[in-house]
Parts: sequence; structure tokens; C-alpha cells
Amino acid sequence: MVGLPILESELQQRQQALRQKFVERGISAGIFFRPVSIQYLTNFSHLSTERPIALILPVEGEPAMLVPKLEEQHLQVQAPWLNQVWVYPEFPGLKHPILQLAEWIKQSDIDTKRLGADHDGHLDQNSYFGPSLSDVLGTNIQRVGDLVDQLRMIKSAAELTLLRTSGAWAARTHRFLQQAMQAGKSERDISRQAEDQAIAQLDQEFGSTGQWGSINLHASFRSGTRTAMSHAAMGNRPVSLGDNLVSYCQGIISGYVTELERTMFFGEPTPTQQHLFETVVEAQQFALETIRPGLACAEVDRLVRAFFEQKGYAQSIQHHQGHGLGLEFHEGPFLDIGDPTILESGMVLSVEPGLYVAEIGGFRHSDTVAVTSSGVEILTPYPRSLEDLVILPNQIG
Amino acid sequence: MVGLPILESELQQRQQALRQKFVERGISAGIFFRPVSIQYLTNFSHLSTERPIALILPVEGEPAMLVPKLEEQHLQVQAPWLNQVWVYPEFPGLKHPILQLAEWIKQSDIDTKRLGADHDGHLDQNSYFGPSLSDVLGTNIQRVGDLVDQLRMIKSAAELTLLRTSGAWAARTHRFLQQAMQAGKSERDISRQAEDQAIAQLDQEFGSTGQWGSINLHASFRSGTRTAMSHAAMGNRPVSLGDNLVSYCQGIISGYVTELERTMFFGEPTPTQQHLFETVVEAQQFALETIRPGLACAEVDRLVRAFFEQKGYAQSIQHHQGHGLGLEFHEGPFLDIGDPTILESGMVLSVEPGLYVAEIGGFRHSDTVAVTSSGVEILTPYPRSLEDLVILPNQIG
Repeated sequence: MVGLPILESELQQRQQALRQKFVERGISAGIFFRPVSIQYLTNFSHLSTERPIALILPVEGEPAMLVPKLEEQHLQVQAPWLNQVWVYPEFPGLKHPILQLAEWIKQSDIDTKRLGADHDGHLDQNSYFGPSLSDVLGTNIQRVGDLVDQLRMIKSAAELTLLRTSGAWAARTHRFLQQAMQAGKSERDISRQAEDQAIAQLDQEFGSTGQWGSINLHASFRSGTRTAMSHAAMGNRPVSLGDNLVSYCQGIISGYVTELERTMFFGEPTPTQQHLFETVVEAQQFALETIRPGLACAEVDRLVRAFFEQKGYAQSIQHHQGHGLGLEFHEGPFLDIGDPTILESGMVLSVEPGLYVAEIGGFRHSDTVAVTSSGVEILTPYPRSLEDLVILPNQIG
Repeated sequence: MVGLPILESELQQRQQALRQKFVERGISAGIFFRPVSIQYLTNFSHLSTERPIALILPVEGEPAMLVPKLEEQHLQVQAPWLNQVWVYPEFPGLKHPILQLAEWIKQSDIDTKRLGADHDGHLDQNSYFGPSLSDVLGTNIQRVGDLVDQLRMIKSAAELTLLRTSGAWAARTHRFLQQAMQAGKSERDISRQAEDQAIAQLDQEFGSTGQWGSINLHASFRSGTRTAMSHAAMGNRPVSLGDNLVSYCQGIISGYVTELERTMFFGEPTPTQQHLFETVVEAQQFALETIRPGLACAEVDRLVRAFFEQKGYAQSIQHHQGHGLGLEFHEGPFLDIGDPTILESGMVLSVEPGLYVAEIGGFRHSDTVAVTSSGVEILTPYPRSLEDLVILPNQIG
């Protein structure tokens, strides 16, 4: 297997779908500065810095890409079908790339009075500075970033295949992680060992890789009472008996990301730990059985919150029940009481009800699932029950 | 050593310096959504997602932070001196966090007619959606992100200490990388091995770590003719005799980043490789001797470009001569013909003239340097000469 890129025909379909939305909104062309939008529409992935990079997609005519000279060859390799490439020497350069972009747009057949964009110029990062595109062109620019995000919500058959592959690798990585747990070794040591093992297998199975962020695996976990912070970062705390462990493994295949998280115990859990564990497993199972096409995202969050509240855990909730995944590790829709999006077949979401109790720890499984015509397909196959997630003393090295 | 955070007194100085700039621009408060601005002003580093996080810094009165519930405890740990914390339950939630933020701002003493911000609402990422802050407040908001970036350009003594530590670790990491080179082993394998070794040492010397992106090391390199693309990503190509190798090592200490890059050869270089190598080493030496306070960044780029052009290599240049480093791996100023910034003592920059020749490869050393009162201090001490960077056949395992 090499690279597994999305086929050019599918890229054309995405561009065509977007053009139809442009027509509905009355715009002549969309200009995209966000790397994820560019990758979705062209397969071109890059290291985003202070140098502006943009895709210009007109309703009529061929797309164009604005790139600095040092990305020209990368673009040729990754998107050879692109015929219009607008290359500027460097940022900021003798002529600012946004001024140059405005000139090229004016020289094209695009009606500059009816433009759309995901951002009014390059992103606010890496001390980038420059005028807004709307100021340079002297025109209002409609925000249309949401149109790409909406298209991205429903995954195609090819995307689901990549996400299935990604989920299977997340599970393999997690197996290495669980096997690497050892008293006295640090969170980071253990996680790196698991990553090394999983990546060695990945590199054997995939051929040449070498696009930014295209094919990779990640393993990490937090241990002890720090897990009560739901977004605690991995550190170098040594693992010891009695810890609960909350993991985070990621598969990335052709840029498509899945996540797999498990609550585990190093040694037998206390009755309190066990009870909290069983409660979140029950909540996750309930969520998995609840998710189906036609239901609102908000409803899933409402029902799971009600489940936790009924059990007396209203105060132990820190977050909603999940988020979309695809080219971003967090993307829409959100399994959140404030997201009215109706679930549809082809959406891919994390399902991760969690409880967090100070001085005890955090409790959460996260699986990545695809919404099917009748319910969900789990993309991250890994045991979820207590017996499979207790690392017993006789296994402790 | 534990964490090495910037002292609260220095954070107060930064905030005070910014407030003076606010007064000059006639604004009553600045609102910062960019994670790097927030980290610079508060020490709070976080995993940035769809959930808005903002620092509200009024000219008069205490700063406030907007965070989702799941970040509340992280904030207490990292910025315990912050007294005003505005916590919203979740994104998007029953009430959108930007609407909630607007209400809190209105309830404060801040004059909402004279606001500044680094972005008009949360950043365009992770399918975040929501109204702009200016629309919700019904007021114009001045862009002031550049004020923070300008402050960040001049590093304090404490920041220089962190960057020196970071550079020393980048050099140790690079030593492991060079030693790990082995025929037939892949770029990724070799780099991970070096990272494992360097990180094991790092974890021994530093105590508890576990803030997002605070303390880490990275090693990577590209090999063969692919190095002719200056931003080529590391892949899993096996290294073989005759390759030229272009590395990238990073130290990250308390969030402060340095980079160290070397062109190396696996086996004796050809006369052409050697000539290109000697030319970029000469160009880098020339740049290092040229940089001094009072000179414009543009002038450095102009002079190095002239040097390359004189040698007949005008067509082999792909980029400018360097960029700032600090809390971001690329930040201002830029050693670019279009950046009029005058060099000042305390600026930290990469110095990396490069030449790129298709079918042969890329040639570039990058060192991170601090501008001193008379010239530069190299923060990434590592050999630069050919004899130190040829990995000889008898070393090839």
C-alpha cells in the first residue's frame, strides 16, 4: 500500500459539490486559506507557517493555487492535475503575496464583487502580517468556510475505508500501549515504546510515506489522580500500583484521524474506581445504542447527561459526549446539547461519555464510530470491559 | 529542574507593556484568542480545539480568562494568580460562549466601544462556528495581535536562558541523530531512536512535566535527492551510501523552541555535493558575521542573496535566510528582503541560507542565534564543517 490518496475523481466531486453551494450563496469563487480545506479539496498537505497558501475555486473555470516558491514542487507531486499554480517568491518579499494574489484574481475571469473565503487573508499565526484580502480588493467577502466543513461531515466510501484502516491501527497501537505498562516506567517512556513498536509495523506495511501528517500513529496516556483533568497532557510521571490510566491513541492514514481511549487500572481497582468505570461503560454503551440517523446530535448529549444525572453524577461531567473526526482530530458535528445537526449515515464521531472526580481520577472510553443506515459501526475495535483493562499484578514487570 | 515557568513578575511586566501600547492605540482592553498570545501573557498553555478560550486584558483592572469547564482546573494549576475566571459549560452549549463572553464584558467596567482583539472571535479551526465578537457587541474591534508579536520579538533574560537550554538540548538530540545513522534503516526509524535516547535523558534531568507542548525534543531528517525540496517531510525511505541528509532537530523548554539543522553525507560526498556544501557553509558564516543590532532584516537577506548570485546560484535559492523563534517555531521578524524590522539585541533568529538542486539535493545548515550588543550568540552549538558531518564508511553499521 502506498499513500492511499483520495482519487482525483473524488476531489472533482467535492469541488463540484462546493461550486453548487457557491451558486446558492451567489458567489463567483471561494478562496480557502485553511490547510484542512485545501487538503480536502486538492490532497495537498503542507507545513503551514507564515507563508500564505490559498486555493481559489471559481464556479466556472479551473481552480488555482497560490503557493510560495518552496512549495511549488510539493504541489506538483501531490496535486499534479492542478494546472493553474500562482507562485510567489517568498513572504513577505518585495511584493506582499496578498497584493500579488489580488492582482492575479483581478486578471482572471472571476467576478471580484461576489467572492467568498474561509478567512479574509492568511491565518493569524507565526507572526504573519498583511492587509485583509477584502481591503486590497475593495470588496466585501462572504465567509464560506462552513460550506467545506459541512461537506466534510459526510464521509464517502473511500474516506470510510481510510478511517477504518486508521481505527484498526489505533487499536494495534493501543495493544502495544497496554502491553508496555510497567511499574516505575514513566508515562512518556511507555507511550514512546508502544509508538515505536506500532510505527515499525506501520512502516513495514505501507510503502513510501513523506507528506506532512499523512501517515502516523500516536500513543499516550495519563496516570493517577491527574486523570481527573479531562485534557491533562502526558508527562513523565512513573506508573505505580493502584493508578488508573486514561489513554489516547490515534491512527492517521492519508491524513484521516481516529481516536481510541480507554480507562485502565494498574492493579485491581477499588470499589469506587470500579463503580465509576462501570458507569461510564454503561453510558458509552447507551450512547452507542442511541446514535442513529435522524436523531439530533443535541439529543444524544441530552440523553447521556440525563443518564449520568439519574445516577447522581451531574457534578462529575466535564464535557459533551463526542465530536466529529476526519482530516481534523476534532471537527463537526458535536454530540453537544447545543448542536442541532441531524445525524446522517456517513458521519464519523467519537463517543466518549466521561466522569471526573477530584482525588480519584478520570473515567472515559472513547471509540470512533461511523453512523450507518441503522446505527453505528465501531471503527476502533478494542475491548471495553473491566476484565480486559485491568493490568494484573502478575503481569507487572 | 521543574517546569521552569516564566515568573509571575515577568508576566505582569509583559501585561503592563501591552497596556501602554493599548493606551497609544486608544483601546480600553485587548481580547486574545490565539493560544500563543495567551501563553505569552499568562503561562497558560492548552490543547486548542473548537472550544473558545480567551484572555481579556483591560488597561485598568485585572485580566480575565474565558475557558470551558474542562480547562478550569488546568488554568488554576498553570496561572494560579488569575482571579477572574469566566467558565462556560461547553461548546456550543445552550448558550454560545461568544454570547456569554459578550455579556461578561458588558457587565465589566470595560468600554466596549474601544476594544482590541487578535482575532474577531475564536479561531477558524476544528469546525468552530459562531458570530463574530464585533457583531455580538455591535462595535468595531481594532486588530491588535501585532502588539503581542512585537513584544515577543525581544526576548528577556529569562527567555534567553530557556532558549539557551533549548538549544543545548537540540544539539544533544542532533548528536544522537548523527550517531544513529545506519545503512538500510529508515529516516523515521533512525529519528525515533535518537528522540528516544534524547528524551530519556531529558526526563532524567527535568522533574514533572505534563503541560501541553511545554518540554519536548524532536529529531527528523530527509535523505537523498528529496532533500532538494526545502520543506520535504520525513518519510520512511531507507538511508543508503551516497545520500545527502538534511536534518531538523528541535528543543522545546517551557514552550520555547530552537531549531538546529545540518546537511550531512552518508559516505564521502561527490565534488558537486562538497562544493554546494562549502558554499552554504560560507554563506551561513557570512550571515552570522553580518547580523548585528541596527541592521535591517531585509539587508541580511539582500546581502546573502547577492553572495549566492555572485557564485552563480541565483536559481538554486528557495527561501529567505531565517525567521524568529520563541514560543512559535516560526515567528517574526523574518530575515527577508521584505521585512524592514531593525535587528535589536535580544532577538532570536534562525540563520539558514540554503541551496536546492534537483536530482542532487538540498544544502542547508540552520542555527538558532540570539542577537547581542555586538553580533550573535549561537544557541545551538554543533559542528558545521564537512569533516564533522561526513558519516564515514567504517562507521556504517
